[in-house]
Amino acid sequence: MADYANIKLERDGAVARLMLNRPERRNALTHAMMLELEDAFAELRQDNRCRALVIRGAGGHFSAGGDLDAMAAMPPKPANGAADPLVAAYRQFGDALLALNELPQVTISIVEGSAVGGGFGMACCSDVVILHESAAFGMPEPKVGFIPSQILPFVVRRVGEGPARDLAVTGRVIDAREAHRLGIGRHFCANTAEINRTLKAVLDNVLRLEPEAVAAVKRLVLSSATRDDRAVLDDAAESLVGLLRRPQAAEGIRHFMAKTLPPWAKEQG
Amino acid sequence: MADYANIKLERDGAVARLMLNRPERRNALTHAMMLELEDAFAELRQDNRCRALVIRGAGGHFSAGGDLDAMAAMPPKPANGAADPLVAAYRQFGDALLALNELPQVTISIVEGSAVGGGFGMACCSDVVILHESAAFGMPEPKVGFIPSQILPFVVRRVGEGPARDLAVTGRVIDAREAHRLGIGRHFCANTAEINRTLKAVLDNVLRLEPEAVAAVKRLVLSSATRDDRAVLDDAAESLVGLLRRPQAAEGIRHFMAKTLPPWAKEQG
Amino acid sequence: MADYANIKLERDGAVARLMLNRPERRNALTHAMMLELEDAFAELRQDNRCRALVIRGAGGHFSAGGDLDAMAAMPPKPANGAADPLVAAYRQFGDALLALNELPQVTISIVEGSAVGGGFGMACCSDVVILHESAAFGMPEPKVGFIPSQILPFVVRRVGEGPARDLAVTGRVIDAREAHRLGIGRHFCANTAEINRTLKAVLDNVLRLEPEAVAAVKRLVLSSATRDDRAVLDDAAESLVGLLRRPQAAEGIRHFMAKTLPPWAKEQG
Repeated sequence: MADYANIKLERDGAVARLMLNRPERRNALTHAMMLELEDAFAELRQDNRCRALVIRGAGGHFSAGGDLDAMAAMPPKPANGAADPLVAAYRQFGDALLALNELPQVTISIVEGSAVGGGFGMACCSDVVILHESAAFGMPEPKVGFIPSQILPFVVRRVGEGPARDLAVTGRVIDAREAHRLGIGRHFCANTAEINRTLKAVLDNVLRLEPEAVAAVKRLVLSSATRDDRAVLDDAAESLVGLLRRPQAAEGIRHFMAKTLPPWAKEQG
Repeated sequence: MADYANIKLERDGAVARLMLNRPERRNALTHAMMLELEDAFAELRQDNRCRALVIRGAGGHFSAGGDLDAMAAMPPKPANGAADPLVAAYRQFGDALLALNELPQVTISIVEGSAVGGGFGMACCSDVVILHESAAFGMPEPKVGFIPSQILPFVVRRVGEGPARDLAVTGRVIDAREAHRLGIGRHFCANTAEINRTLKAVLDNVLRLEPEAVAAVKRLVLSSATRDDRAVLDDAAESLVGLLRRPQAAEGIRHFMAKTLPPWAKEQG
Repeated sequence: MADYANIKLERDGAVARLMLNRPERRNALTHAMMLELEDAFAELRQDNRCRALVIRGAGGHFSAGGDLDAMAAMPPKPANGAADPLVAAYRQFGDALLALNELPQVTISIVEGSAVGGGFGMACCSDVVILHESAAFGMPEPKVGFIPSQILPFVVRRVGEGPARDLAVTGRVIDAREAHRLGIGRHFCANTAEINRTLKAVLDNVLRLEPEAVAAVKRLVLSSATRDDRAVLDDAAESLVGLLRRPQAAEGIRHFMAKTLPPWAKEQG
């Protein structure tokens, strides 16, 4: 795998581990770091051996969001009304979040400490979020005179419009208990041992599942929210029968009835 | 009412009771059973005397989802690239779920024991869900190599995208407490006596309401999620005035002011 | 500010306070009162000094919904199939709710006592809802033979389709605890002192934020629910860069780094 300056990507059997790795800046996001994330997600997307991705921040924080030093040093607005290249630069973070959101693998974020702005967004693009009791989420950008931007659709989808609205217009930071109640994360852990046990349990579940079926169901769930029910149902029936016509389904049913493990369930992380 | 082999449909005044009735298979769904459900929902839709439908599974389970024996015995894929008839066969379960979801009557599911796959979907298509503490929900299909399919849009609408996503990619089964927290059911009952009291209280509420008004408000709520607010508001104003122009509304207002019961509130189940 | 007969609108620095003021009728809504609300929201929308609006009902209730006396006195249906003017009259309440929902300022509703029908809707159009333990929400209209109408899209957005459906078809009234669990309000207060403390804390947060950023993020959150992610992301990147190119953003970043307060954070209510 590629060598990165701001993140670390490692493989451990079927499980990839991605570390946000600028601990001296609480893993605040820069354009360079975002490009590395986009590259890593593109690589993982093609990796058929990888079945789960675990994301974590180095040094006790997940990510403090956009790096203000980097933001302050923005290039001047182009003269003569030309399109502002800064729009495309920020919009690209949205593409990185979409790439994470739509990975065919199961994505698990372990959130300790600060997860504000872009860090909050990355958590909301993960399938499973494990919360350490130190986790803190928020969108404080309007205090400084700008807005959370590319994370917004993902936050709204995760917590619903009502809580998203409350968080957005108050800029308040919420603790892990409230994040748990709002459904940002399904698992609340009081300490590292509990995080490790929870992660192991989640991976044990995930690695019993047939990978193509997981990718298919994830795609269907994400496409459900803004489409007509009948369109989702048509698509889902096609996808189901496509999967049933593969030898894996017959094999899975046979093993299920015999109470034995299918081959994909043996490859534990 | 028609006689069915896999379900039982009975009338009790304004209340219909539907029993999923293959207890020896934990009420697992077959194509034949699904056709009977579709027929029953079509019959109920036309039944003006019926104001509420109570759905329950025989033998301590709601429904264990698609019957794997039946699924294993699927017809071979047609040669020469013809459309696979299996797609339409599975898609028809989506129509049965839509028919349940859109019944003009109030639908109440009492969930005991297993409610996975199709059983989970039927619960999510009901207006009110009463949970017994033995209730267990999940979408474990990817373990066996295929996916939950026709239930997906209904699960996403009931629990929201975040929890749906977590359940879909982990295949985990959740207990009644977590189902209660996720809003799959509004009522948690520790035993059968509590279920009976809760059902009676729900029916008492429901049978005080004017049936055409209930059908209209249910239709509007279900149409709200994926439409522009203004389209919903236009439709809602038309519907409201149509109802107000009937004699029932004047009668209802008169009775409300006199603190007497309107005629529709007298017909208790 | 204009003088109203059914509401009261006052200014207190950057904070406006709107009182629903028909306590003898539990602040039930009439057409005249609705026109006053629409007028007040239009005035506030233009008011650049105003940064937050606090809404409250006089006399211990928020609002008991549509005034039944007024509803009973409806004009007859026009002859010869002409459009019924009652449709437009009710539809106008939807416009008043949209105006409240889309105010650029932060809106805070303090709900004591009854908040049914239109009162429930106004709470769901507010950014922050503070619940007194006496608060009670519901949509009992079908008891009387008609439906909640213009409030429906806002209720569905606030509580989600599942709970909205349960409330709509049972007509049941829920207490402040259940409203808190359903996310109708984020803050539960046992008494008036707690309401005052909570309101102060919310306003302290809100008045630290830069007003144009708040208006922008609120608009983006409200537009997220029914749009494609990519459309929201494009719009959000444009909005972000537009805000960053203002002197306020540079000033905000400078103050943030110096740990000093930017000018907009000094103007406390």
